[in-house]
Amino acid sequence: MVSNDDGIGSTGIAALVEAVLPLGEVVVVAPDSPQSAMGHAITVNGSIRLKPSQLFGPSVRAFACSGTPADCVKLAKHLVLRERTPDLVVSGINHGANTSISILYSGTMSAAMEAAIEWVPAVGFSLDDFDHHADFSHSIVHVREIARRILADGLPKGVVLNVNIPSRKEQPIQGIRVCRQGDGYWKEEFDLVNADGPDPNGVPDLTQEQAFLLRGSFVNRDTTAHDTDLWAVENNYIAVVPAQYDLTAYNTLDTLREQWNIDHH
Amino acid sequence: MVSNDDGIGSTGIAALVEAVLPLGEVVVVAPDSPQSAMGHAITVNGSIRLKPSQLFGPSVRAFACSGTPADCVKLAKHLVLRERTPDLVVSGINHGANTSISILYSGTMSAAMEAAIEWVPAVGFSLDDFDHHADFSHSIVHVREIARRILADGLPKGVVLNVNIPSRKEQPIQGIRVCRQGDGYWKEEFDLVNADGPDPNGVPDLTQEQAFLLRGSFVNRDTTAHDTDLWAVENNYIAVVPAQYDLTAYNTLDTLREQWNIDHH
Repeated sequence: MVSNDDGIGSTGIAALVEAVLPLGEVVVVAPDSPQSAMGHAITVNGSIRLKPSQLFGPSVRAFACSGTPADCVKLAKHLVLRERTPDLVVSGINHGANTSISILYSGTMSAAMEAAIEWVPAVGFSLDDFDHHADFSHSIVHVREIARRILADGLPKGVVLNVNIPSRKEQPIQGIRVCRQGDGYWKEEFDLVNADGPDPNGVPDLTQEQAFLLRGSFVNRDTTAHDTDLWAVENNYIAVVPAQYDLTAYNTLDTLREQWNIDHH
Repeated sequence: MVSNDDGIGSTGIAALVEAVLPLGEVVVVAPDSPQSAMGHAITVNGSIRLKPSQLFGPSVRAFACSGTPADCVKLAKHLVLRERTPDLVVSGINHGANTSISILYSGTMSAAMEAAIEWVPAVGFSLDDFDHHADFSHSIVHVREIARRILADGLPKGVVLNVNIPSRKEQPIQGIRVCRQGDGYWKEEFDLVNADGPDPNGVPDLTQEQAFLLRGSFVNRDTTAHDTDLWAVENNYIAVVPAQYDLTAYNTLDTLREQWNIDHH
């Protein structure tokens, strides 16, 4: 089962379908329009539309969906596959990296995570290239190899792989590195939007209603480590981060229990 | 700094402001309309509006925001507080529990998580009561106590607390329990929407465009454990789960490195 967040018409999902087509029956349910930065949103107010699509030719059942990436996976499993569990859910290939903290904002990864929650093997792929004409073709052989290995070996229950692929360069990709999520955050700036458009130097009068555009730059708090997804992609390796939906900070549980547990009776 | 996902006009945020008002200067930036199930979405396409609000009286600077809960926290920190770091970010009180896997879909928790990503102490509060006339008043004393303790003791870096409060019952709340995230998922059902409205028994013809409404029921995969948020809330304890933004499945790293690490050269 294939989904993404850039939309069913994107270059990245075409590359992903091409990668997995030799591996088995392929079903696509993907957003009918771009859904970047949707995080793990689901549609709880209002209806979701599902429309058959011929985009990938006669051998691929495909549907465009008006919902979020997480909605797409839910619809695929429960309506299109009618409770047949997919052997593998693949999402992407995202146009732009989803390393470090970007995993939290990523619709690509939320589609894959949604599958992992139901213990379906799942992986999200992203290409570290925001260029409008990004070339996905070198990814296909690597995506196919990774998908094939998950189909053969499986994944630990509840684990989803976040795979980031370096952009096309002169030298070939160096290899695959299993990594931890690098530590960083997006430092935001907001441009005031006035009658003439966005104004980066505008000083907003917050006593009145104002409009803003969000910009941001990534701050890497993990610059010296060599075991992160950030390091791997920068050094021309494919970064594979095993991620989980259990957010519990286990290494703080004991300390917090001592400080916080209270019985009122 | 106060935010939520049910919107600035909701009963839960009024209770939260009442709870924290004795603890210091309070600034509110909250969505101008309900944003439930938005997950960790941010607004990257289109502008965000920010409008001053008098809802909480003259002593509280408050703003209604057209963006998501995560947007609200970004705007609060970078525009309203002008890079002054808040002592504490509180989000909620959500109308309905955010136990177990619901943390991933929750806008309430994404607002708190957004603060934790920037190492600001943060906590999300939710009330285990979906009733339209849910009573938040018994929560206030507990919310105030928890906020006071975080202000005094701090939180481990990058950790956000997910606090779920039992609904008002005959007997008083039993105490506070530090828990792990209970394991479960939302099993979805989709009702076909036809010309007469939603039809739970409708069989969709997927060769045509169709519309669906999402319903779901929670499946608890952790029914025998006594250390989960699910158990605590069911047993009339306030559940406190320390959660982290680092999603790495550390206990699988070594195994996956052996299986997956490849050098192509």
